[in-house]
Amino acid sequence: MHLFSNILGVFVFDEELNLIDKLLFNDIENYKNKNQFIEEIKSRHQNLKAPIDSALKNMLQYFKNAEFFSDFYYKNLQLTRIDTKNSVNDDTLLIQAVKSVEELDKAANILVKRLREWYELYNPEASRAVENHEKFVEKILEKEKSELLEELKVSPGDSIGCEMEQGDLEPIRSMAHHLYDLYQLRKAQSDYISMLMDGLCPNIKAVCDSSVGAKLIEHAGSLKRLSQMPASTIQILGAEKALFRHMKTGSKSPKHGVIISHPLIAKAPGKIHGKIARALADKISIAAKVDYFQGRFIGDKLRNYLENKFSSIK
Amino acid sequence: MHLFSNILGVFVFDEELNLIDKLLFNDIENYKNKNQFIEEIKSRHQNLKAPIDSALKNMLQYFKNAEFFSDFYYKNLQLTRIDTKNSVNDDTLLIQAVKSVEELDKAANILVKRLREWYELYNPEASRAVENHEKFVEKILEKEKSELLEELKVSPGDSIGCEMEQGDLEPIRSMAHHLYDLYQLRKAQSDYISMLMDGLCPNIKAVCDSSVGAKLIEHAGSLKRLSQMPASTIQILGAEKALFRHMKTGSKSPKHGVIISHPLIAKAPGKIHGKIARALADKISIAAKVDYFQGRFIGDKLRNYLENKFSSIK
Repeated sequence: MHLFSNILGVFVFDEELNLIDKLLFNDIENYKNKNQFIEEIKSRHQNLKAPIDSALKNMLQYFKNAEFFSDFYYKNLQLTRIDTKNSVNDDTLLIQAVKSVEELDKAANILVKRLREWYELYNPEASRAVENHEKFVEKILEKEKSELLEELKVSPGDSIGCEMEQGDLEPIRSMAHHLYDLYQLRKAQSDYISMLMDGLCPNIKAVCDSSVGAKLIEHAGSLKRLSQMPASTIQILGAEKALFRHMKTGSKSPKHGVIISHPLIAKAPGKIHGKIARALADKISIAAKVDYFQGRFIGDKLRNYLENKFSSIK
Repeated sequence: MHLFSNILGVFVFDEELNLIDKLLFNDIENYKNKNQFIEEIKSRHQNLKAPIDSALKNMLQYFKNAEFFSDFYYKNLQLTRIDTKNSVNDDTLLIQAVKSVEELDKAANILVKRLREWYELYNPEASRAVENHEKFVEKILEKEKSELLEELKVSPGDSIGCEMEQGDLEPIRSMAHHLYDLYQLRKAQSDYISMLMDGLCPNIKAVCDSSVGAKLIEHAGSLKRLSQMPASTIQILGAEKALFRHMKTGSKSPKHGVIISHPLIAKAPGKIHGKIARALADKISIAAKVDYFQGRFIGDKLRNYLENKFSSIK
């Protein structure tokens, strides 16, 4: 006799493939506990075995009739819904937040360039004196043109900016206000990322700071996939373009991907970048595995090891 | 005797190129009224004439000595400053505002796509029910997930969105808030453009509405340049890419550039687009000339002519 189970229930067929017993599931909960049902039906029959392929094919036909089909369809749909719901976990949220920060940067850059060009008609000296975009926005919101020129020791007569009426300044100031708000939003999103990482991957966070760590998870697709990657892949994650160019044209292979922004690499002289990248990727790979399997916190030790090894090299 | 004037003053040289009289300018204001000075010096001497080329060359040498040079340099610098200041006029501001609206669209589009992807983890049904980005943002700020699902007659159990804690919803809502603000800013900038056009080019505004008109001025570079363009150029302004492709490869020549968004063309059937574009560009060319030379308002008549001619064609 054959034992067969699907989303609808547990079924017993005899050798001629006639249905001789069944236990139907009432809901998805029953399906999740299907082992209990299987045990129960096993206790009623002897010599139950799994069907061989040819028998299986005929059994599946059995469920195509109208009696089962609509139930089959809806229960499967319900199961998919539940799976979809449950597929959202902290790394999905983390990845959305990381992408949002990247896109806020992109949007803010587009807008701040426009703001500068516009504002420079009015006060080019002040704009050119502040290179950092965020500081520039704060400065022009805080101070009037005359104050800014005074700071730069430019007499108002020497400025090559034009006079502007209040009505023409208003749209410029309004744009600056919105940009200021976007920069604040970016900060809030970064804090959120950092908070998510405390729960999801404290070890990765300790080894590589939250922005580099979050980008690694984003590039890998999930914490699980990052934890399964060899260190050599983690090392060049984010440098896919250079890697494919290397494979295609034989140009130099990339030494590092997103981990280039890690302070240990960024501060070090170029000639040891590759060496640090290799050691760093190695520790990140360990940290990712510990985080994925929720082991104890060893991030501080991994980080200290790297700091001690490389921070003295000048 | 030779009469010579530059930014420093008015000078009289005899036939041997010795300086025999001069009137120096005290400031830029004097220079702007140099004709008064020339008249004054003419009344003191007879037979003054402009120097011939060879004499001019020697006279210029005269101003290279240290006595004049620093004065010469600073007065020219001052003049350039004043010219730069005065080069900012209403069409410069208009063009900045037009570009800012275009870039706000670009930035908002980047961010709203992220917002949708992020929000769809939580409530995909509501996101997919509202196609318009701006309405989508308003909707999710106004209403809770349960209310939105009720509107769509989806029972909460059937939603494939996941549950989210308040802390994970916060960054999403915050992004929606900022997007809402960006859309408001875009509206304010459009109003500003419309207001600038009332003063700068009421005829163009009447013929083609403020967004199309403003884009034409942006593409032309200034109202002056738009007023000097032939109608055929105005017709394809903004379709430069298609035009160059036409010239290079012999593909079809473009029938319209930014004026494609004009309601008369946008609403008409495709086969008469070219015809309307030609007539429209013709009237815009007239309107631009009237606006540049600040003639009287005829925009309503031009618009009416076009409306009567084309609005009945289906």
